[in-house]
Amino acid sequence: MNYHTGNFELNTQKILDAINKAKLENADLVVFSELSVCGYPPRDFLEFNDFINLCTESVQLIAEHCVGIAAIVGAPTVNPKVEGKDLYNSAYFLADGKVQQIIHKTLLPNYDVFDEYRYFEPNRTFEIVNYKDKKLAVTICEDLWNLSENPMYINSPMDELIKQSPDCIINIAASPYSKVQINTRLNVLKNNAVKYNLPLLYVNHIGAQTQLIFDGGSCVLNSNGKLVGQLRHFEEDVISVDLYELNNQNSITETAQTNQINYQDIEQALVLGIKEYFRKQGFSKAILGLSGGVDSALVLCLAAKALGAENVLAVMLPSQYSSDHSVSDSQKLVENLGVKSDLISIENTFAALQQTLSKQFENTEFNIAEENMQSRSRAVILMALANKFGYILLNTSNKSELAVGYGTLYGDMCGGISVIGDLYKTEVYALCEYINRNEEIIPKNILTKAPSAELRPNQKDSDSLPDYEVLDAILNHYIEERKGPNEIIALGFSEELVKRTLKMVNNNEWKRLQAPPVLRVSSKSFGPGRRMPLVAKYLG
Amino acid sequence: MNYHTGNFELNTQKILDAINKAKLENADLVVFSELSVCGYPPRDFLEFNDFINLCTESVQLIAEHCVGIAAIVGAPTVNPKVEGKDLYNSAYFLADGKVQQIIHKTLLPNYDVFDEYRYFEPNRTFEIVNYKDKKLAVTICEDLWNLSENPMYINSPMDELIKQSPDCIINIAASPYSKVQINTRLNVLKNNAVKYNLPLLYVNHIGAQTQLIFDGGSCVLNSNGKLVGQLRHFEEDVISVDLYELNNQNSITETAQTNQINYQDIEQALVLGIKEYFRKQGFSKAILGLSGGVDSALVLCLAAKALGAENVLAVMLPSQYSSDHSVSDSQKLVENLGVKSDLISIENTFAALQQTLSKQFENTEFNIAEENMQSRSRAVILMALANKFGYILLNTSNKSELAVGYGTLYGDMCGGISVIGDLYKTEVYALCEYINRNEEIIPKNILTKAPSAELRPNQKDSDSLPDYEVLDAILNHYIEERKGPNEIIALGFSEELVKRTLKMVNNNEWKRLQAPPVLRVSSKSFGPGRRMPLVAKYLG
Repeated sequence: MNYHTGNFELNTQKILDAINKAKLENADLVVFSELSVCGYPPRDFLEFNDFINLCTESVQLIAEHCVGIAAIVGAPTVNPKVEGKDLYNSAYFLADGKVQQIIHKTLLPNYDVFDEYRYFEPNRTFEIVNYKDKKLAVTICEDLWNLSENPMYINSPMDELIKQSPDCIINIAASPYSKVQINTRLNVLKNNAVKYNLPLLYVNHIGAQTQLIFDGGSCVLNSNGKLVGQLRHFEEDVISVDLYELNNQNSITETAQTNQINYQDIEQALVLGIKEYFRKQGFSKAILGLSGGVDSALVLCLAAKALGAENVLAVMLPSQYSSDHSVSDSQKLVENLGVKSDLISIENTFAALQQTLSKQFENTEFNIAEENMQSRSRAVILMALANKFGYILLNTSNKSELAVGYGTLYGDMCGGISVIGDLYKTEVYALCEYINRNEEIIPKNILTKAPSAELRPNQKDSDSLPDYEVLDAILNHYIEERKGPNEIIALGFSEELVKRTLKMVNNNEWKRLQAPPVLRVSSKSFGPGRRMPLVAKYLG
Repeated sequence: MNYHTGNFELNTQKILDAINKAKLENADLVVFSELSVCGYPPRDFLEFNDFINLCTESVQLIAEHCVGIAAIVGAPTVNPKVEGKDLYNSAYFLADGKVQQIIHKTLLPNYDVFDEYRYFEPNRTFEIVNYKDKKLAVTICEDLWNLSENPMYINSPMDELIKQSPDCIINIAASPYSKVQINTRLNVLKNNAVKYNLPLLYVNHIGAQTQLIFDGGSCVLNSNGKLVGQLRHFEEDVISVDLYELNNQNSITETAQTNQINYQDIEQALVLGIKEYFRKQGFSKAILGLSGGVDSALVLCLAAKALGAENVLAVMLPSQYSSDHSVSDSQKLVENLGVKSDLISIENTFAALQQTLSKQFENTEFNIAEENMQSRSRAVILMALANKFGYILLNTSNKSELAVGYGTLYGDMCGGISVIGDLYKTEVYALCEYINRNEEIIPKNILTKAPSAELRPNQKDSDSLPDYEVLDAILNHYIEERKGPNEIIALGFSEELVKRTLKMVNNNEWKRLQAPPVLRVSSKSFGPGRRMPLVAKYLG
């Protein structure tokens, strides 16, 4: 299910409705995901007693409805402590109208986007849940993730729980999407089912909380690790299973796992990310600047799909340096999508700024200052329309340009949410090709022309940046793989290019710090999952 | 000492110079602060093997110089692991040209601005360092901080080390300044000295790393908890002590500890924060918009002190809505400080924007859109000057307005660093009064006029906001004290006002997410120490 952080009324009602539905199906147990009561991640709201009290009250209310059925919900628990952190991250087992048992999370992820050790004390005692003559090993997300050859934790809860001879594993999770996560996650679950020779029931979130997109994909495995139940990805879904007849069920034919990026998933993830950002804040209308380039074209397609063409306004903002095709290509795309559009020249604003600064800029060369003035003029106009008519500005920066700082802060880097800030430029093209797979939605000319910021005559991205194929490969090694300069050079890239690229990445932390939140689709996106010093010297 | 994150050459050279100096004084041991070799906080640079290798090489180089003297330096250590995180946060004991012993940090702070559990495995074995017939209990920062009545950790390293009968406690630290931290820290150190009846040598960082300001204030306590050695705050400093004659030394007369905010410290902290942000990035010149209000006046004073009046350009950017005194008051301040200034009207730019949008804005009322257009016109002009001439724009937002969102994103919220974003409006006034304590540097009229954004005729802050005295009190309860609405109302504030204020704070997370880094002087500043969901419903 799709929860909304801090929206206790909504979350509780959704859980109660699902329990009522499960009762009608004569289910014995209904399972909800990690921290379902408050939404995930609640972040520093967890430091407010008031927030924790609301969690506890919601759990109590849900428990009272668990008559003739049991439920597992996720919520924080106050540590009745002598020492240690104030809270646990818990699974509540509810039955007979009461909280029967509380299981705490043992392994607390504290890497990438995760900060759980900031709030929670790890569990150190291991108890099976007994219910209707069966023994349930209840675990919470990361609790099943210590199987690798390089384990991050010094213990594994299932190694303790297995001693109590459970009949199945239940895992309630909050596992965000990335382009590698769906395969990785399924493998982890299979390895657990096989290792412990137990059926496994896995329940994840769907929806999005700002940057984090949850793809759902809850599932059921039998004790041979075969997938026997699969809930939908990127949508709310529910299934009923007989946990103890799973080995007699036919397993589901799985899509062959490949290392190829699944652009269908990425498109769904980004559309969900936009939709949720708007819906959960009560917004409906988006605005963006349409430059005639590939980035804004892609964002427009995704926004139209997420919000409806009627809710999206594309504004073309040409200057004297814009090519003719920048407007004509954009107009064609606008027609193809059926979105609203407007055409507003920035020439007068830019001229007024130049006039205003004529004394100060006397005898200086046209340079980055004038380029940025144009980009910022566009931003001021877009934000004025947004403020006047209640639009949210969508940012159109891609990951390659965010990485090397090829963008204007307070200019094209503006926006409420960065839609494609976690897609390298080469991935932007690939996703456009995917969108065009059946018909030419994005005009071909947008995909074939040389990328340009069009902030001075005949400017091309390739004047300042290496080929995107090479740049993106280096960036991926540095950002996703966390390889240092020598390791990347050893892969065959030019030393000069590697050093220049890494220096650009590190020297632009200050710009990214003020960038909009980025919808996360990779294993390492800019934002809360990547925490770099700003004032530093290393490689910069 | 003042280290620079990732600047191995500089940090190593500083350490070597200090060791050489200590040798000349016939010192037995010289102690440097936590993670001194790489700077603190290194953040996700710790995830790069290349960075860790550079740390290890630096430690090796320093060790080779430790002949006839011993040294303790801080650096990460690779966990030669079967399981657990990849690194330890360590103190290296160096003597006879070699690494003799490595002590790992046990208690890893993971709250507020601290993320140490993201990188480090906690220590679980406890060893005394034996040196010249004495036993040293070497601890790292947080290791001494588990003394409260509500301990955050389930163990205390000194409780283990004391069993081995040490002769003294050494603590190497990276403890950032806040307006309450100097007193709190000294009390913690005293409590340790007294509890374990041991002399204590404490070594902290000075300097600043973006938001975090380190005040130094390293010190020596005797086994009665009396302060017998005190290094300077906000400056590099060194002292020599005979650790085993401390009880015979006269203790230092301490400044009486009060709950009053020490504005001298705050001024020094902010000046250091500005200075370090510029110096460590190789910048020298700052620009800011001078509105005639108290916030920009204060930032100008601090910038002139930090960078030199000759390196600061104050730009007055009046519009048709600016009061006459906005320019005249500003000019007087500029003269008092001797900074450069310029006067650039935004009227033409604002008019061009209005003209450009005249069709779209036809039949709409002058509202927040036009107000923001003015603020953003100023930002575009300031950034154009910054880009053209190599200035860094200083942000002048205060904590009260950042909290409630009373500012224009991409307008007055722009800047490379937020100088006073951790001072409530009432504290801004108090710091101005402190600066004016001997002479009227900030013109009195700036301090006495009613605060106004001057974005429409006769606008006053009090049109939209409660009295700052009341607002700041509510904000402090919510932000610093993390009290919920009911707790704050119970203190006697109006329910309507509390609910409206908390809602404004929560609904403006999206703006703060794109704000510049804020120099941290409170126990809870906006930025990496306060992590709130953006898309959430709680109190919003």
